Amino acid sequence: MVDDQDVRPGELRIELPATMDAGITFIGRIRTPFKARSDCPKNTRQSDAIATVEVDPRYGEGLAGLEKYSHIILLYWMHEARRDLIAQVPRHLGEKRGTFALRSPVRPNPISIGVVELLGIEGTTLTVRKVDCLDGTPLVDIKPYFASTDSHPDAKSE
Amino acid sequence: MVDDQDVRPGELRIELPATMDAGITFIGRIRTPFKARSDCPKNTRQSDAIATVEVDPRYGEGLAGLEKYSHIILLYWMHEARRDLIAQVPRHLGEKRGTFALRSPVRPNPISIGVVELLGIEGTTLTVRKVDCLDGTPLVDIKPYFASTDSHPDAKSE
Repeated sequence: MVDDQDVRPGELRIELPATMDAGITFIGRIRTPFKARSDCPKNTRQSDAIATVEVDPRYGEGLAGLEKYSHIILLYWMHEARRDLIAQVPRHLGEKRGTFALRSPVRPNPISIGVVELLGIEGTTLTVRKVDCLDGTPLVDIKPYFASTDSHPDAKSE
Repeated sequence: MVDDQDVRPGELRIELPATMDAGITFIGRIRTPFKARSDCPKNTRQSDAIATVEVDPRYGEGLAGLEKYSHIILLYWMHEARRDLIAQVPRHLGEKRGTFALRSPVRPNPISIGVVELLGIEGTTLTVRKVDCLDGTPLVDIKPYFASTDSHPDAKSE
């Protein structure tokens, strides 16, 4: 699945454990206008794209009550991302940064999270705004967004 | 690991797929004052507890640059949670709600997320404030929190 094994100067590879500790089951797919990694916006703020979240009907009953929320959190599996870079040199920074100090899809457990606006639910299909992932990205979880615990407008970076 | 297989009236069980789609490797552990599930606060807002995040030294280089951020996102594996309830009747609601409309640890992929204040980093140990999980909870990922994309103070629920 990895289509780019290049490592930029300064980037660090590690050996991942040979066996995994837990298993993930994909609960659906995210449909976006982005058909190639180069089409994807760098983050959700840079995109007003409308996307659909297709939840596997097996999990349909899990959506009851979700319509109450204006915003939801999607967890998705970055299925095209390599997992072995522990330090990276992102193009937009031009310098080395630890993987856990980045939102890059490349990480030991390639799960991304995105806060999206929930526009509607029809059956097991959600319509949402603000997504940055590739069309067909596997869905791992959906959670309601709570301003009381999830919103920190005062959060800073140096 | 599941120590409570009771299902309350109205709760719905589903059969999970027999094989998993992807594997998770635990990258560390979260140390909290909460030694039993009954000790855990219902959410991070209800806790000012100080916790430590012990990152496996294998992944230590991944922390470089994280000190720039006041808030970080932890993803952790709710290792004591069952995965087969798709609708639940939480005590605080007293009515049935779909699993994806809840932040309950019980879900097909039992990953929780918590936004915490980063107080310090020493070696591969992080000191953080605002956690709600059990002592020893396996760590899945660390991400920087970006107010620009992650903070939605206007998010509403009905």
